[in-house]
Amino acid sequence: MQEQILNGTAAQSAREEEIRRIIQAGRDFIKMPPEAEEEENDAFPGYKTDQEQKKQQPPLYKRASGGRVTPLPSDYGSLALNNSILSVIFARKSSRIYTDEPITLLQLSFLLWATQGVKSIRGNNYATLRTVPCGGARHEFECYLAVRNVEGLVPGYYHYMPDRHALELLSEGCQDDDINASLCGQRWALKANVVMYYSVIPYRAEWRYGIYAHRTILIDAGHITENLYIACSASGLGTCAVAAVDTAVSDRMFALDGNEEYIFYAAPVGTVSPVSEKEEAEIYAFLKDEKGAASP
Amino acid sequence: MQEQILNGTAAQSAREEEIRRIIQAGRDFIKMPPEAEEEENDAFPGYKTDQEQKKQQPPLYKRASGGRVTPLPSDYGSLALNNSILSVIFARKSSRIYTDEPITLLQLSFLLWATQGVKSIRGNNYATLRTVPCGGARHEFECYLAVRNVEGLVPGYYHYMPDRHALELLSEGCQDDDINASLCGQRWALKANVVMYYSVIPYRAEWRYGIYAHRTILIDAGHITENLYIACSASGLGTCAVAAVDTAVSDRMFALDGNEEYIFYAAPVGTVSPVSEKEEAEIYAFLKDEKGAASP
Repeated sequence: MQEQILNGTAAQSAREEEIRRIIQAGRDFIKMPPEAEEEENDAFPGYKTDQEQKKQQPPLYKRASGGRVTPLPSDYGSLALNNSILSVIFARKSSRIYTDEPITLLQLSFLLWATQGVKSIRGNNYATLRTVPCGGARHEFECYLAVRNVEGLVPGYYHYMPDRHALELLSEGCQDDDINASLCGQRWALKANVVMYYSVIPYRAEWRYGIYAHRTILIDAGHITENLYIACSASGLGTCAVAAVDTAVSDRMFALDGNEEYIFYAAPVGTVSPVSEKEEAEIYAFLKDEKGAASP
Repeated sequence: MQEQILNGTAAQSAREEEIRRIIQAGRDFIKMPPEAEEEENDAFPGYKTDQEQKKQQPPLYKRASGGRVTPLPSDYGSLALNNSILSVIFARKSSRIYTDEPITLLQLSFLLWATQGVKSIRGNNYATLRTVPCGGARHEFECYLAVRNVEGLVPGYYHYMPDRHALELLSEGCQDDDINASLCGQRWALKANVVMYYSVIPYRAEWRYGIYAHRTILIDAGHITENLYIACSASGLGTCAVAAVDTAVSDRMFALDGNEEYIFYAAPVGTVSPVSEKEEAEIYAFLKDEKGAASP
């Protein structure tokens, strides 16, 4: 309050007020609205979601759009995986420096399975049960890929089809300028073998949860990328999820409309080596690290 | 639009408009605001976060408040863990039916390490590197526990201290009514051995990200609970994260102020058995499941 008076103008004061209002709105968004679970909704008496109104359920997946389809292998058992769960969890970290080695189609397939793979379908296409949890099993996400260096795939933009565990090629060629702009200038991502882009189709969640759908969409996205980190840690790959995504640029890359479906989260993935890991550590070499108390 | 005209009143039309506005605001919240990454912020010219203004960084952890402290064991290697990463990922599921068996302090310790454990401290208390990723390594969360049935702990409300990998007892005794109300009446949680409650201290993230802090807080919470699912899957326990949390009730349980720190997410954890798993499956027995294409 002191600063405001010193700075003086009413405009400055109005601006500070607006910043406080935005911060408070952000804090409030994180909480479940108290009326959401009430039998009789006081904010909107008689409020019913589309599911409660028995409106038709939206499709579980996006359909293919006519591009070339590459089925993905699923013999994950033949991958060289770290099978110590303690070291998989402990070794998980953010990796932003990648080598020029390609990744195999099986490695990529494992990452897609671990993050969005369908384990079973419940009822008459009522829900998918996947490797990650999602509120109400709505799985309102789609995964798109900018493939740069994957054995068996031409570089290009792809869409993952979880119902077929396959990739559809949307367009050939991968533009560094697109990737750079879509990730707000995080140039390290231009060395990734593949960049995962996560879109949301909000109506899939809104159909069930209505006006209360949106905070859990973000939580559920975190489930996906944590499994990506775990799967990378287990298979010797590196990733670093990126929340700073330019939705408009990303949506142009994958021809999304920007409201019924839009990209909001991404994760470059690449090959790492002792050399790249050392380079990564050196970025922070000026800071002295201490061992944490919880380490095994 | 048809329905509106049939229903008639201006009040009804205003209400529909307000519902559309809330849904659009929710959709917009999920996206990164376009100006967030711009050098010169058009919405707020000259906007600087508190970190950019070189304001003092908030503490990395909440301090103990004088309760009895129980150090947690960290010999996780002596746990019976499933060390096939494929089956850990594949077996992950939501479990809401628990047995009466206690869990050990080491099992609980493993879950806390896997979800919030500190691997190392960067610089002069600048950041913690943990088993889960978090935007800017701010780790703006605290974990509270309602302990019901854990060997070596009296039932009660606890706080996890990641810097010491220890639990502080906040108050003895665990009230079913509290747990039930805090989780909006999800009575299955009353059989859990322990309920994890996740709070956020938003300023830890706001210090670095200002008005843009809040969408990533929710994503980062999803990272935590996915590791909880993975750790439960690996150690033979069951969990089901709950986004329907009554913040006011939960905050009273752990004496939080509700704005500078508040509970927004929770996860009951319990022992499971083939019998409880069968009971769980029977809930959905009327729906015929099909195998997904991605399954190994």
